[in-house]
This record gives sequence, C-alpha cells and structure tokens, in this order.
Amino acid sequence: MAISFELLARDGMARRGRLTTPHGVVDTPAFMPVGTLGTVKGLLPDQVRDAGASMVLANTYHLHLRPGDDRVARLGGLHRFMAWEGSILTDSGGYQVFSLAERRSISDRGVVFRSHVDGRMIDLTPEKAIQIQENLGSDIAMVLDECPPAGCTPAELERAVARTVAWAARCRSAGTRADQAQFAIVQGGLDIEIRRQCALDLTALDFPGYALGGFSVGEKPEAMAAALPACADALPSNKPRYLMGVGRPEDLLAAIGSGIDMFDCVLPTRNGRNAQAFTRHGELRLRNACFRDDAKPLDGECDCVACTRFSRAYIHHMFASHEMLGPILLSAHNIRFYQRLVGGARVAIQNGTYGAWSRDWLVGDPQVP
Amino acid sequence: MAISFELLARDGMARRGRLTTPHGVVDTPAFMPVGTLGTVKGLLPDQVRDAGASMVLANTYHLHLRPGDDRVARLGGLHRFMAWEGSILTDSGGYQVFSLAERRSISDRGVVFRSHVDGRMIDLTPEKAIQIQENLGSDIAMVLDECPPAGCTPAELERAVARTVAWAARCRSAGTRADQAQFAIVQGGLDIEIRRQCALDLTALDFPGYALGGFSVGEKPEAMAAALPACADALPSNKPRYLMGVGRPEDLLAAIGSGIDMFDCVLPTRNGRNAQAFTRHGELRLRNACFRDDAKPLDGECDCVACTRFSRAYIHHMFASHEMLGPILLSAHNIRFYQRLVGGARVAIQNGTYGAWSRDWLVGDPQVP
Repeated sequence: MAISFELLARDGMARRGRLTTPHGVVDTPAFMPVGTLGTVKGLLPDQVRDAGASMVLANTYHLHLRPGDDRVARLGGLHRFMAWEGSILTDSGGYQVFSLAERRSISDRGVVFRSHVDGRMIDLTPEKAIQIQENLGSDIAMVLDECPPAGCTPAELERAVARTVAWAARCRSAGTRADQAQFAIVQGGLDIEIRRQCALDLTALDFPGYALGGFSVGEKPEAMAAALPACADALPSNKPRYLMGVGRPEDLLAAIGSGIDMFDCVLPTRNGRNAQAFTRHGELRLRNACFRDDAKPLDGECDCVACTRFSRAYIHHMFASHEMLGPILLSAHNIRFYQRLVGGARVAIQNGTYGAWSRDWLVGDPQVP
Repeated sequence: MAISFELLARDGMARRGRLTTPHGVVDTPAFMPVGTLGTVKGLLPDQVRDAGASMVLANTYHLHLRPGDDRVARLGGLHRFMAWEGSILTDSGGYQVFSLAERRSISDRGVVFRSHVDGRMIDLTPEKAIQIQENLGSDIAMVLDECPPAGCTPAELERAVARTVAWAARCRSAGTRADQAQFAIVQGGLDIEIRRQCALDLTALDFPGYALGGFSVGEKPEAMAAALPACADALPSNKPRYLMGVGRPEDLLAAIGSGIDMFDCVLPTRNGRNAQAFTRHGELRLRNACFRDDAKPLDGECDCVACTRFSRAYIHHMFASHEMLGPILLSAHNIRFYQRLVGGARVAIQNGTYGAWSRDWLVGDPQVP
C-alpha cells in the first residue's frame, strides 16, 4: 500500500486522522496549498513547509501541457523537480479540461481538447490521466472524472456520474506504481441519492481514498454545507475523505464538522496576490489607504514572517508600489493562516470541543482589525 | 562618529577594510544590493542577509515620493519599516531627479521638479536632501550633488562641480543626527584634474566617507576603468571610498583594483527578474529553450538556494510559465553571486594575490556553462 490512514479521534462527525505517504505524515484535517505548475506561487518550498503544510496539490493538466510530464519524469519526478520533500497530490486534469480547454469533445472513451498553451489537440483518457500522474510521481493520484456543471439536467447528471464510475474502474486497472495511491471522485451535484449510489459503486472498487468533486462549482455555499454531511457519511469511514477545491475558511469548518479530512484551494495564494489577507476577524484589503499609517501587524494572532516582521503600512506600501514582496508576504501569511485553521481544528477534535471551537472561531471579533 | 573605518590590508591599490556603522560591521570591498523602495525586489530581508549582504542601498527620491520619509519616520525609521537589521546607505535623490523627474529646474539654491508619481512640484535643496535622509534614518547619507551628463561642455562640467562642492558644504552644516554619517560625492566626468580639485575641495570639509559619482552614465567602460585609479587616489586613504551605481562584475574587479571599497548596482536584481543569471563563466539566459531539459544546477560553484535545490530546467519552466519564483530564485542567486565576488576579492587582497586572482576570475572558463 502506498499510503495508510489512521483515525486518531472523532468528535461528532469530525475526524482527526493521520495519513502516511511515501513522503511523510500528513495530519488531518489537512489543507493542501495549490502548486499548479510545480510552485506554490511566490513561495520557496521551505516557506511552504515552514507555514506548516506537509502536502501540496499540483495540477496534472497544467504540468502535462508545460513543461510536460515526460520531461518531469526524466528530471527525476515532480518532488525533485520542484524541490518539495513533502507529499504531493495531483488532480486528474479533468476539472481543468472542463473549465479551461477550448474545443473539447467528450465521449465514453475520454476527452479530446485543444491546449490553451500551444493549440495542439490533446487526448485525455482515464488510462492517460494515470500515466501522466505516474510520470509526475505524486503520492496520490486522482482518477479522471466528469464534473457536471451546477444546474445541469438530471439526465446529464446521471450520465456524468455513470461515466465517472466507469472511468474510475479503468484508472484503477491502469495504475502500475506501488508508491502511488489513487483516490476515486464522487460526483452527483446536490443530489444526495445519486451521490450515495456513486459512492457505493466506487467503494466496491476499493480505492485507498475518496474525494467529493463537483462542489464549489457555482452552487450556493449553504447548499453545499447542507449536502456535505450525508455525502461524507456515504464514504468509507476508514479511508481519507477529500473535498476538492474548497474553499473559504467557513467552508472548511463546516466540511470538517461533516467528516471531511483533506482540502485544497487557491484562495490563500490568489487572494494574497490580490492584497487580501485572511484573519480570524475578517479579510483585510491591504491596498486600502486606511493602512497607510497603520503600524500594527497584519494579524496579531499570527506567527508568520509577514505578521512578525512587518507593519500593515509596509505591506500597503509594497502593494502601492507594485513590489513583489507584497504578494510574497500575503501568500505566506494566508498559507500560514489556513494551516493554523486546520491545526486548531485538529486540536479541538482531539479535545472533543470541535463544535464550540468552530462556532467561536466563526464569530471572531469584527472589532479587532 | 556615526561610523568608523579601518584598513586591514592593502594589495597594490586594492584595499581590504572594515566599516562599522550603528547597525553592524560591513567588510570591504562591499557590494550593496539595491532596495529602491525599501525592499530588495523579490527577497525577504533574511534572504538578503543570508546571501551575505550586510548593507543595502535605498533611494531617497523614491521613498520621499512614496510612502514619504515623514511617514517612514513616524513608523520608526527605514530599518524598522523594511525589517532590515543591517546597515543602510541612502542616496541623496539627485541622480533620480536628473534621470527620472519631469520639468526640473536647477539653480544654486537646489532643484525643483515634478513628481513622476502624482505630478506635484517638489523642492529639493541640499538641506532638504539631508532632512529627508535623517527622517529615513539611514546609517550613511549622501550629499546632494549635480551629476553632469556624459558629453557635456567643459563649462557645464565646471559649473556642476562647483555647485556639487557648495551643496556638499551646505549638507555638512545641515546634518543633525549623530547616528548618521554623510558621504561627499566627487564629480568631474572623465576629467582627472577637475576630479582631483573637487576631491581636494571636499576633503577640506572632512567627510566620514567619499564617493565617486558621475560614472556609468554613458561613457565607455574602458574610459571609466582608465580614470578610476587617479580618481580613487585623490580621495583620503583613511576613509571609505564608494563608486556609485557600478556595475558589472568586471567593473567591480577593475574598481577594487583601483582602491574602491563600496559598490551598489541594480544589475543583480534587474537581470535576475529578466531571467539572466550571473556565473563566473558567463551570463545564462534562462528563458532560452536550451535549458528545457538541463538537469544541472544554475551554477555548480554557488551555494545559494537556486543552485542547491533546483535545476536549470525548473528555473526555465518558472520563467516560461511567468511564475514569480523565477525572478525570486535568480535575484537570490545574483545577489549571492555578487557577494561571493566581493568576498573572493577580500580574501585575495588579504592574501596579497588580488592581481592574479582577479585576472584569473575574468578569464573564467567559457566551456563550463
């Protein structure tokens, strides 16, 4: 087995666990910073590790197009290429094919699409998605799935789910690396019964882990939060559960309370590049003139380099002057913020106080910033 | 005295010294990375320090316009603002007024110019230049000078030099901070006699240090190299000598051989952002496709994070993908390269082998990259 997963504590539906991969231990609930092209944007690997992250996500679609997974393999695999000694999860590329690629056509066989980088036509089948991820050498590979858009018809939804299950079986058969674990992806939109059946069909294939895909694709956050407990509960309890692409701090807290173990999202780095800093008491927009003379740290509760060394006034000045250090500092802070958030959740679950802790966290204190 | 300077060794005209400021020791010959707006672009202060730099340069003109030196003073001074615990030298703003400002008019009183940031008219006198730098709280402040363009008439040159001497005297009188040392600036273009007289006039004012300005302003590098020994020799031997805004590695080696102690230049960071890496054996352009599959380190002789953790192929991929980590890694490498260059020069001077060492260095081995 490439990975093992141990449940250390439960608190209601919330779970405190430990995932072990060929590249180390990942304490869950865990948040994976996103390193789309083999870099968590703006940060050195040591800075990502120092922020508390032990696993990052990289994008199969992007790395396949550039620099090419075959090239990454020749250069020693993705860990070595990006100098990241921790664990790596790669997505299957399916989500990007549906959201980014031009002129795609989908069939039971797979997807054909036009590269947004150089215009060539690319063929992505379940087998190919696994081959690419084996070239990258990630610790966890995601199966190729079809992610139906929010608001599609029931017939479209059912067809996408059937295809997702069939593709998962083909991925499972295509895997050859003993040091890489595959996670299956449950689709089904907001339809609990379809999700439950999809989870049942995938569980029969006995994957080392399971993900919920197709959330955060345009539906209301409350709709996701309402569907999550039943969706998570349909997954095997002895395997890690990963909610893909989610999300805001409040979404993470709700999902952890529903029994989710793993998360990824571009928000901390993307918002950081846009001068937005997460704090427990609200988001700060550092381009605002109100910070021009503010000698306070970004977040008095944070121990990151941005908060311990610099003032809000300095970070404002960096953004006002279009200096790279602005995005660097806020990316470092936001990544640390998310790690502190899941770290706090882990402690609360261990202590059996997750419900009160997360309610308290969500209230914050709007007066603090 | 805000600073002290000790000569530890001589080798021909080359000097090995130790400058002590209120913020620590600076071994000379020294190279100061440029932190125009209060940040060495793309790097955290610890990364600059880890590269071996103990002093940085910040730009009075830029910081006066944004965020404002009065604001920096209220926020605790420039060291605290930019979280740099080492020494800081600030230029006087004169050079930028002549190269960047719009609608400037110059008189014996000073310069009036239009801000390139917000269009307001700004009055810069010698007294004001010192007041701004005292607000910033740098360890070394530069006097306001008039930098005549290469190729100006002898009359223009003489008038600029006379004004530079008169302004230096006014700066000296205007200084009030005991923890800030002023350096005078010798002008005179390529005219050795005018430079010598300017140096004599300024030496009579007994400054703690002296700079050569008006080089690297369009003249041929060989013309500068030819003029440097006599120009450096005209400066007091017991005071630090600073060659402003220079330059390429070969320029530094020639200048060190002429008795210069201090340097600053934007080349390492600017070239780094443009995908150019300095090595002893030539400059590498990391955007070139030839690096796509190159598993070698950037520079096998370097101990920086870019060279010890990543391949050329990865750094090429960062630039091809417009990732911030490309500029970050090459800025870190180039800053480290310049620090290794002056570090090597210090050792060679100490050993009495500077001539051979610098000739050997310049030959390099073009086969290595």
